Order: sequence, then structure tokens, then C-alpha cells
Amino acid sequence: MREVAVVSVGYTRVSEHWEKSIKGLFVEAALKALENADLSVRSLDGMYVANVFAGYLQGQTNLANVLADSLGVYDKFAISIDAGGASGALAIHEAYKDVAHGVRDVVMVCGVEKMSETSPQEVVSALTSVADQEYLRYTGITVHSLAALIYKTYLRRFNKKQEDVALMSVVDHEHAITCSHAQYPFKLSVEAIMSSAILADPIRALEVISPSDGSAAIIMCPHEKAKELGLSHVKLVTSQIARDKFNLMERDDLLSMKALIEAAQRAYNSTGITPSDLSFVELYDDYSVMGVIALEKLGLCGPGEGVELLKNGEVKLSGSIPVNTFGGLKARGAPLGAVGVYQAVEAYLQLTGNAGPNQVKNARIGLTQTSCGFNSIVVINLFEACC
Amino acid sequence: MREVAVVSVGYTRVSEHWEKSIKGLFVEAALKALENADLSVRSLDGMYVANVFAGYLQGQTNLANVLADSLGVYDKFAISIDAGGASGALAIHEAYKDVAHGVRDVVMVCGVEKMSETSPQEVVSALTSVADQEYLRYTGITVHSLAALIYKTYLRRFNKKQEDVALMSVVDHEHAITCSHAQYPFKLSVEAIMSSAILADPIRALEVISPSDGSAAIIMCPHEKAKELGLSHVKLVTSQIARDKFNLMERDDLLSMKALIEAAQRAYNSTGITPSDLSFVELYDDYSVMGVIALEKLGLCGPGEGVELLKNGEVKLSGSIPVNTFGGLKARGAPLGAVGVYQAVEAYLQLTGNAGPNQVKNARIGLTQTSCGFNSIVVINLFEACC
Repeated sequence: MREVAVVSVGYTRVSEHWEKSIKGLFVEAALKALENADLSVRSLDGMYVANVFAGYLQGQTNLANVLADSLGVYDKFAISIDAGGASGALAIHEAYKDVAHGVRDVVMVCGVEKMSETSPQEVVSALTSVADQEYLRYTGITVHSLAALIYKTYLRRFNKKQEDVALMSVVDHEHAITCSHAQYPFKLSVEAIMSSAILADPIRALEVISPSDGSAAIIMCPHEKAKELGLSHVKLVTSQIARDKFNLMERDDLLSMKALIEAAQRAYNSTGITPSDLSFVELYDDYSVMGVIALEKLGLCGPGEGVELLKNGEVKLSGSIPVNTFGGLKARGAPLGAVGVYQAVEAYLQLTGNAGPNQVKNARIGLTQTSCGFNSIVVINLFEACC
Repeated sequence: MREVAVVSVGYTRVSEHWEKSIKGLFVEAALKALENADLSVRSLDGMYVANVFAGYLQGQTNLANVLADSLGVYDKFAISIDAGGASGALAIHEAYKDVAHGVRDVVMVCGVEKMSETSPQEVVSALTSVADQEYLRYTGITVHSLAALIYKTYLRRFNKKQEDVALMSVVDHEHAITCSHAQYPFKLSVEAIMSSAILADPIRALEVISPSDGSAAIIMCPHEKAKELGLSHVKLVTSQIARDKFNLMERDDLLSMKALIEAAQRAYNSTGITPSDLSFVELYDDYSVMGVIALEKLGLCGPGEGVELLKNGEVKLSGSIPVNTFGGLKARGAPLGAVGVYQAVEAYLQLTGNAGPNQVKNARIGLTQTSCGFNSIVVINLFEACC
């Protein structure tokens, strides 16, 4: 297998882009990624497009082929990937296989999502379309209500306060203040969170992701080719996927998160990298409690100790294990299918020293965790600085 | 690279399955494929699910993960593929890469589509969702009107009669009469076609595909493993993809079909197989004229000579190059995302001698052509009998 490098990134700000179409967002991110590496469209051997809602919200199926044309990539491989929130990282996983096994040399992965221009009820409906229509949705259960079950169980089992779990969102917002591509670059206090509306007891509105528009692209190629081309790059050292039962009520334990543990263990075991080697982690915190649980299941602390990492400030940019260095899902924003690609972009920026005011000192190894359905699918990608 | 085998198939009849959900159709096909090979769900290392309209028509995004759970595949790789009509064959292409490069051993590919339970206008709307929303759909152009441009150009350039082109659909229906999984197993005459409604001049209603529900599954593994397990199997000797400009009006010539020519040439060149080696061909004839053009571009005859093959009966089961041996898109039926998998199923049945009354004598090599967007994406898969 060939070593795989990420040689360029491009991205739009995450926002409500009322004036831009899904095609416009995609082209903006894709062209930036090409320009940043001084590569032409002709140099691409293929592209993977991660997206969840184009068919549902924009009435656009067959997205990758439409987008490839809009970029002028007429004659190369293009494929659409949908696996809910895990789509972006799964698309990277597919591209990783192509490059590692010599199927293709230069592959672009682009995540794009457009969730504005739709009413609040349409957005909730779209988000729920990721869940099982027959088994869950028709019963009236919402995604928020499932997260609430996990949240309550966590608070009770470990005897924690919601004010402490909510610190996850506070940290996200603190890091987003100096992130130019963040959707919500402002300070958020625990008090503000705790006085926001309850969505499903105990979840407060301000510790949950909001609808976002955005697009992020990365370009991957063999490590040897990246060196030949003289492109600044990082290595994607492994990409691991694991799955768990999709329906929460079929799991033995609401907090087991088997897929998260398994994907992380595979990533550590296959590379020899341990949690203590990580310079930073980009977590999938669609709910504050899911970020706290991820801290624990990734082996950054023991069970029930995630809150302590937050309270002690260890997850801040200057801490021992910086988390969500550009604001995470809550504050950078979460254009669903694109999240995994944004996380990879952020890992690239950190490991090439291009993170500006959000730079983690001596960043050498970064982990991204991208999930769908309360960790029913988890993709762990490990990135490493070169030289 | 490892040689790749198809070791089992399962499928539902193509029909309007009012009483079955998309999940029910999938499980039926998937379980049959497992049972036919006496394999357990646990033996699968992953699955690719091809589908176009679940997000649009059923409000079900994230389909592969929902379906994997419904089959009891809780902990293995599952991914959804959407590339319009090419989805099924593209999913096979992705699985082929996994098996050939040693990423996974036993992979299921399942195509599923449910287009009934929706009004005619919703179905037309869904079919048009595969085209470019911004560039085409908003102008009011329908997919039928684009096909009509191709059809008229073909008739004029080669001075052919529509009655002869329509023979493509007549042959499909003739083959479907003895196909137990066909949606329309009845004889269709040229007269009936020519007296059916005009959809977009000159296209007649009875030479176009109709909405279909259905699911087909195949199981793939390394050829060596197929032999070890003692499973009757066929080889998937190559899987080639090519793309062309998605929007017809941007092509130099409406009849050029560059991607079809390129994918076929790559398939022939990479294997040494020539058109004269083919025992049968499963074509993508979503419109009768597209089937005729495919005969020519695949190298089975010269430009403008496709109609002669039809008139001379060469494409019948007993002819020199049997085409659409179970009825093709028109008569077996075209559950869009599943079409490429149905074609692979039919190739497997022919090459293992299990085609019953539709058996092509001495079938050794079969080609499937699966397309999207008037051959803007073309997948050519070549299957070969073993021993």
C-alpha cells in the first residue's frame, strides 16, 4: 500500500449562504483547493462528493455528476456518498483506499450541504430523515429525544451536572472566535446555554448544532507524488470505520458506543499511535454530551472523566489535548455531509502550521472523529505532520 | 490484484410492490442471495447499497445504514451509492475494487428502488431530479424531451424509421415472456408501440421505461475463496467507468456518446475480449433508441446499423448476439438504482446455466452496460463463466 497525503484544502465559511446555491458552494471550495496547490482541474483523477440532503431538500439526486460538470471535470470518476453525519469522513475513507491501493493518483473529496432556504420544520424533517423511517420516525420520536435519553443516562450514571457537560459548547465557541470560517464566532456562557429553550429534557437549544450551509474540499495523492510536486502536505496515516446497531433501543447500553471504541482502537493499533501522542482532536459533538462521551471513548480520559478535562481547561488550545480547535460542530458549524471534510481541513491547517490564531503549538498528530446516528457509524482518520 | 467472483444472487420480481416497503424489498433480495450461497449474515465483510430516490420519494436518507441494520449486519461496512441509473453498476465497481485490492473478502452489493406509492407527477419529478436542477430542470426541459432530441437526430442522420428502432422494445418484451422476475412479461408489437401516446415527439409511451419497484443483490468474493467454498460462480473480469459531459447541449454531437465508447474500449483492451467474443449483452435501453445506439457504440455493428441487427433477429436469444436476455429495462423493468445489479444477476444466471427458458446456449462471456444521463456515466462490467 502507498502512503497517502493531503496536499491541499479549500473551504467556504460555514454560514447561512442565502445567496449561494449548493453548486456555487461546491465550486468555491473545490476551486480554492485546486488553486492552493496550483493544480488544474485536468490533474484530478476522480472525486468523491459527500452530501446528505440534496435529494431531500434541493430535489437534486445524482449530485456528484452534476457537480463534477459544474467544475469542468467531464471525463473523470465522480461518486456521491451519503451516510448522514459520517458522509464526509466516509468519502475520505473511500478516496484513501483508491490512493493507497493505486486505483487513482489525485483524488478530490468535497463535502457540501445547504440547509438554509428551508423552513425550521423542513430542517427538522430532513435531520430526522437520517433515522429509520419505518422503525423510528413514524412513532414520532425525534433525534433530539434520543439524544436526551443518552444525556440523562450520562448525568445519572456518573453523577454529573449539565452545567459541566455544557462546557463542551462553551469551549467550541471560545475557539471559534478567531476562526474566520466559523458560523458562530462569539463567546457563549454556561448561563446562556442553561437559560436557552429546552428541546427535549434536558437538552438546551444552545448545546446543539444548527442548520448550516458550507463546503469543504481536500485533495489527496500518494505521499511520494506530494514530495515530487513539492506541495506542503500532511499524511493521512489511517482511516478506520466501525458500525454499531443503528437503533439505540437495540443496544445493550445507551452509553456503550461500541463503534467509537472499535474504530479508535483499530486506528491506534494499526499505527502504534496512542491517545497521549495526539496533538489535538476534532470531535463530533452534535450534542454537547456526545462530545464529552467521545473524549472518554477515544481514551483521552476514563469513564465519566470527560467533564473533568473540560473543567480543567485541558481541551483548550493551550491545554494538554486541544479539542475542536476551530469551534467544532457547535460553533464552526455543521453542514452535515461536509463535517468530516471540514475536520480534515482543520487537521491539515494545524499540521502545516497554517492555523493562525488557532494554532496548536508543535502540532504533530491529529485525530478526527466523525459519526452518524449516535455513533452507529464512526470514522476515525489520523493525520500526521510531515518533516 | 485478486480475481473477483460473483458467488450468489438474489432478487425480487420487478413490479409495483404496493404491499412491500423499500426495506422489505431489500431484505428479500439480500436474504435470497445469502441463502443461495448458504452464507450467513456474519460472513459479510461489507455491503454497498445502490439507490436513487429513497431521500426524494421515501424521505429516507442514510439508506445503507438503515438497511444494514434491518438485515442484522450491525458491525460491518455499509455505504450508499447514488449515480442515477448507473448506481447499481457503480456499486458493483466499488465492491470490485475492495475485493480485487484485498480490502474486503465477502461483499454484498444490493440495488433497491421503490417508485410506486407516488403519483405520476411525483415520479416524473423524481426522474428529473437526476438531471441538473439549476441548469435544466428550472427551464422546464424534461428528460423525455432530451431523449427526443437524440431520437430525432438518430432517425435523420441514418435515415431510419421509428418502427425499426422500436423493435428494441419488441425484443425486450419477447424475452420477458418467459422471465419470472419481469414486470411486463407480455408480447408487444410495433403497431401497439406506434399507436401509443407521444411523450415528446417522436417518443412513444411504449418504448420508454415505467416506474418500477424491485431489489437485486449479488455477493462477491475473491475467485480463490469461491473455489475453496465450492460455490458455483462467475468471474467479474473487469469493471470500467467513463464519464462524459452531463448536459447534452454542451456536447459536440448528440450522438457521440464518448463515455460509452471509452468504457467499452477500456473493458475490451484491459481483457483482450472483443465484441465478437460476447455471448450476450445486457444493454441500458431506457429509451428504445438508446438501446440501438448502444449496440453500435459497443462495437457490435457499425454506425447506423443497430436497426439491422434488430430487423435480422440477431439480438434474439437464438441470434448471434442475444441482447437483454430477460427483457431489459423496458420489459423486465427498471427500478432505477437497482438496474445495474439486475443486469449482473442476469449475467450470473446465464453464465452458470441457470437462465431456464431464457438460457443462451454456450454462454461464456457477458457484458453489462449501465448508464446515467444519456451515457454521461457509463459502467461496463464483463462477466465470464468458470470452467
